Amino acid sequence: MVVVLEKNVSDKQIENVIKHLEDFGFAVHKSTGVEQIILGAIGVKPNFDTRQIKILDGVAEVYRITEPFKLASRSFKKENTEIKIKDVVIGGNEVVMMAGPCSVENEDQIFAVAEIVAKSGAKILRGGAFKPRTSPYSFQGLGEEGLKLLRKAADKFNLLVITEVMESAQISLIEEYTDIFQVGARNMQNFSLLRDLGKTSTPIMLKRGLSATVEDWLMSAEYILSNGNKEVMLCERGIRTFETFTRNTFDLSAIPVVHKRSHLPVIADPSHATGLRDKVLPMARAAVAAGADGLMVEVHNDPEKALSDGPQALLPEQFEDLMKQVKLIAEVIGRKM
Amino acid sequence: MVVVLEKNVSDKQIENVIKHLEDFGFAVHKSTGVEQIILGAIGVKPNFDTRQIKILDGVAEVYRITEPFKLASRSFKKENTEIKIKDVVIGGNEVVMMAGPCSVENEDQIFAVAEIVAKSGAKILRGGAFKPRTSPYSFQGLGEEGLKLLRKAADKFNLLVITEVMESAQISLIEEYTDIFQVGARNMQNFSLLRDLGKTSTPIMLKRGLSATVEDWLMSAEYILSNGNKEVMLCERGIRTFETFTRNTFDLSAIPVVHKRSHLPVIADPSHATGLRDKVLPMARAAVAAGADGLMVEVHNDPEKALSDGPQALLPEQFEDLMKQVKLIAEVIGRKM
Amino acid sequence: MVVVLEKNVSDKQIENVIKHLEDFGFAVHKSTGVEQIILGAIGVKPNFDTRQIKILDGVAEVYRITEPFKLASRSFKKENTEIKIKDVVIGGNEVVMMAGPCSVENEDQIFAVAEIVAKSGAKILRGGAFKPRTSPYSFQGLGEEGLKLLRKAADKFNLLVITEVMESAQISLIEEYTDIFQVGARNMQNFSLLRDLGKTSTPIMLKRGLSATVEDWLMSAEYILSNGNKEVMLCERGIRTFETFTRNTFDLSAIPVVHKRSHLPVIADPSHATGLRDKVLPMARAAVAAGADGLMVEVHNDPEKALSDGPQALLPEQFEDLMKQVKLIAEVIGRKM
Amino acid sequence: MVVVLEKNVSDKQIENVIKHLEDFGFAVHKSTGVEQIILGAIGVKPNFDTRQIKILDGVAEVYRITEPFKLASRSFKKENTEIKIKDVVIGGNEVVMMAGPCSVENEDQIFAVAEIVAKSGAKILRGGAFKPRTSPYSFQGLGEEGLKLLRKAADKFNLLVITEVMESAQISLIEEYTDIFQVGARNMQNFSLLRDLGKTSTPIMLKRGLSATVEDWLMSAEYILSNGNKEVMLCERGIRTFETFTRNTFDLSAIPVVHKRSHLPVIADPSHATGLRDKVLPMARAAVAAGADGLMVEVHNDPEKALSDGPQALLPEQFEDLMKQVKLIAEVIGRKM
Repeated sequence: MVVVLEKNVSDKQIENVIKHLEDFGFAVHKSTGVEQIILGAIGVKPNFDTRQIKILDGVAEVYRITEPFKLASRSFKKENTEIKIKDVVIGGNEVVMMAGPCSVENEDQIFAVAEIVAKSGAKILRGGAFKPRTSPYSFQGLGEEGLKLLRKAADKFNLLVITEVMESAQISLIEEYTDIFQVGARNMQNFSLLRDLGKTSTPIMLKRGLSATVEDWLMSAEYILSNGNKEVMLCERGIRTFETFTRNTFDLSAIPVVHKRSHLPVIADPSHATGLRDKVLPMARAAVAAGADGLMVEVHNDPEKALSDGPQALLPEQFEDLMKQVKLIAEVIGRKM
Repeated sequence: MVVVLEKNVSDKQIENVIKHLEDFGFAVHKSTGVEQIILGAIGVKPNFDTRQIKILDGVAEVYRITEPFKLASRSFKKENTEIKIKDVVIGGNEVVMMAGPCSVENEDQIFAVAEIVAKSGAKILRGGAFKPRTSPYSFQGLGEEGLKLLRKAADKFNLLVITEVMESAQISLIEEYTDIFQVGARNMQNFSLLRDLGKTSTPIMLKRGLSATVEDWLMSAEYILSNGNKEVMLCERGIRTFETFTRNTFDLSAIPVVHKRSHLPVIADPSHATGLRDKVLPMARAAVAAGADGLMVEVHNDPEKALSDGPQALLPEQFEDLMKQVKLIAEVIGRKM
Repeated sequence: MVVVLEKNVSDKQIENVIKHLEDFGFAVHKSTGVEQIILGAIGVKPNFDTRQIKILDGVAEVYRITEPFKLASRSFKKENTEIKIKDVVIGGNEVVMMAGPCSVENEDQIFAVAEIVAKSGAKILRGGAFKPRTSPYSFQGLGEEGLKLLRKAADKFNLLVITEVMESAQISLIEEYTDIFQVGARNMQNFSLLRDLGKTSTPIMLKRGLSATVEDWLMSAEYILSNGNKEVMLCERGIRTFETFTRNTFDLSAIPVVHKRSHLPVIADPSHATGLRDKVLPMARAAVAAGADGLMVEVHNDPEKALSDGPQALLPEQFEDLMKQVKLIAEVIGRKM
Repeated sequence: MVVVLEKNVSDKQIENVIKHLEDFGFAVHKSTGVEQIILGAIGVKPNFDTRQIKILDGVAEVYRITEPFKLASRSFKKENTEIKIKDVVIGGNEVVMMAGPCSVENEDQIFAVAEIVAKSGAKILRGGAFKPRTSPYSFQGLGEEGLKLLRKAADKFNLLVITEVMESAQISLIEEYTDIFQVGARNMQNFSLLRDLGKTSTPIMLKRGLSATVEDWLMSAEYILSNGNKEVMLCERGIRTFETFTRNTFDLSAIPVVHKRSHLPVIADPSHATGLRDKVLPMARAAVAAGADGLMVEVHNDPEKALSDGPQALLPEQFEDLMKQVKLIAEVIGRKM
């Protein structure tokens, strides 16, 4: 940690800052520049609140310097994390497609969609059984019945399952049916849930919160990792900005940024990021071109009748076209799909 | 709902849009302007996803017109909601002060702080027993022991208690000790938690999420209200923007905005909004001047030794000074404190 | 324009709103729904300030419905605008590369860079002669000497020239040397400059402002178009958000959004959007995959010695590699480069 | 400047970084911690681009430490800047009111408004003669005729004049009529204009840009100060965020933040920040409570007929009421109005 003192700091103030640093357990090095005195404080703990120093008289600025996350960082683990589930590897050379409806609605629908997405090369079937809807009056999902249908449909077409978990009380139930837990954007900082998921051994996909910086996001991953579960993948799905022509702003630059800072795989979700079907294809291509390790896309056999998020779901033929195009993009950058 | 058609829309497309609207249960009125055709669709349900129409060929724009929240709206209930707990009324003419430490740390600390804040006129003691920290390595609170100490300290100095609930599993335990449940900003869209709190009869303070619009916030209040609990107050505590000199951007305009749209009381929290002690006094004054129904402020008897958020906690003498100033501001606008 | 009245509106209030609308020149249609009365106001002028109605008693909400821009809109002009300059077409099937240094520094530098970018297939040479630097103490450009060198270097390697104009007083001078005027992000709403550029017949590239919505951006284009100059292209270069790991947030979804709303070509600038060299390659690929009509990229023969923005400039071999990859991406989506 | 090296940095990389720092003119101190090596670089120039070091191999992070602005900083000048114009002092103990219409429309209007605002105690008359409208089709102001009327009206009621300058070519004309130049939010980074205004001796009010951080804003003030004009005041008028119920988000915390970092006075403009008349009164009170040195408020004798921004203009009786209330708030914090 680096503590910059104010230009007109008094000797007494300097002493007081040094004493505080030492009381917090730091070794302190003082270096006197032309204009300002700087204190180097060695030994910062990941949970240290730098504002405890910033608030002292005579302190101009405090820089933490070390990243607040550890297990999630590239400096802790150099090699990419590869998550192997049955014969699918996430985070390796292959770009993995997760696709399916927003919600599981009934047996016909989920089987129809599973067939469509499997045929075009998706490896993982997505579908919600418990839905976190912003309106209390909206369809809230089929619950356990939805989980059963999702599993059956996936098994029939040799797909893995990913589905959202909304609260700790659902973990053991959902774990029976899913291959990957999805944590939604609105729960990214539901720390109780993260802690409890960290104690399971099922892989987890952690969506980025609407107002989460990359650092916040990696801190939430750290919650899971530090509780023991090392199989975490991240999912960029748009952040909230002032722009309203799209539902959210798809922050694709976050993909190379995370790849530099962390060893965890990054999936991209153009359906939620844009919120409208006709933007999904170009943004799916862009995500793979930017280096995403996988895509999550909403597909519905009959989007106009979908009980939730129909307007952002691709039609079957659009999904087929998307798969063809992103496969070619993946090859341009030396990856497979 | 109003559906604006594209300028060059074909008769077949118009027919298709009207058919869809009727299938969704709307009565449709067509009005032909100089440049564009507009469809008025009467009978929108609060959970209708307008994108289901926006995605149709020939549609330029869709406007919902009716607010997506109902029970929380001023048009549903004209009079201000007043929440009475023992002899304290929140949402009436009096501006209510909630104050205390970030976390309950030990008996001496919470009793010392309770005495300080009661002496200056606070009515409600705040303090965390379960702490939602962004880092898994930070102090996570004393748990039930913290709740007991908080209750004892409040009772001794004739204060009410407000404390945070982080997950549904904690509700029944915390309910034994608290007068008001606090839902933190990061849980504002934890819909499972909101639903379960809606089934209790304890008043709830719902903090605004970092990226929540006023509409999102009122939708979250609607979750609680629609499950039966009508005693909801809101708390503005800063939103996330590009500015970094303060921890968050305190959106004080949200206070008169909410008062126009909703009947629910609005509290303001300058400690979390700014994140630094020396900004709390001016922003507390500003919040009351803007019309806040109450303030939530962090106070600590020895902030430098606080286990969490010490840098934003007021010193005892600063709190006393703040109370004097905000009382005078309240009087300027015809309120008491 | 659609005016939604409050649920409890009085007859007198309705009359007053209608009278105001008629005074403003609207034809008014009243339609009475189950819950609310809606007024359709036909004949809104592009400059009408809808708040003039919103402020009236009894009005709940006002929706403009027609877009505030006209000449820039896809509904005004269906076909893509193609801008032909010598043998280069911007906005056609070909993806056009604009590349060069941030600033023209001296003859050796600009000739070296021009040679590098021409060799790899760029068609347009970029370089600043007048620099809008955020710090008054930074290098402000070579002025007219820079323009001369830029033109000479471009001519030698058969490239077009694009360079920034910062104020109306520079227009006639810069026009002698450039093929395209660039309007920087910070000047996107410098309306005097836009008006004066609209009176020239030189093509203009209008960068998106850091806090400009797509609508603001198209309104600024409208300023130029309505003054007579129809050769306008847009340039996405990142917007300001809370994320700080990248300089700005590259809003690539804006590319398909603009293509739907407007007929104007869209260029993407990954160098300014990300601010760091190692993010330029993946984001350039992503921009082309998202449908950009061109790229603007900073290249320097010796970035470590660059007088401005060196850290985001590509090395010569990185640029060559980028050109190869984006060419392949362009082909995947049926375009040339 | 502090340069943090990566944990696994090689000796050769360290040498290379040190060589670069020395070539840029820094004196370098190396300090080796438990986990990381840190280089202190003494002698950073205000215009140094820290990314030139950040991009080198082996560098993890670079912190500038010294503020990039100098003349605007509190550490350069401890005492508040007081700007005296005739018998008005801005930045002293008195809170100064600037009020008037958005645009000067005709003689009757500006005289009527001037009388209203003078009567309630405003000291400065605002009014636009050249209007920077987002739509090219909107009223663009009366030009010089407007300036003449503004001056005449102000003189009659013993008021000072503030009016906006949009481009360098207008400076000498406007200077004949105004006491204070206003630079609008959209021109905050029009560096040519700032430079030219810096060469005048007329006081300047610099509005904050919609996406400007406090640091950007102070850098723009630095442009004016470094060209010789020391009479600069700042004006907070709302920043752009995701919230849409208000036109902008009024960042009142910026007032105490600027007062700590800089010696320049800060004015607040609740009319532009909120965009609706009924939010102006509470937010004006809040601004004074937060410590603003002055207010700028739009007032119109007949807002419904105003040619621009009528919906945010106060009615005469509302303005009178506002003046009474803010005067009392000013007294609570020991100031006059």
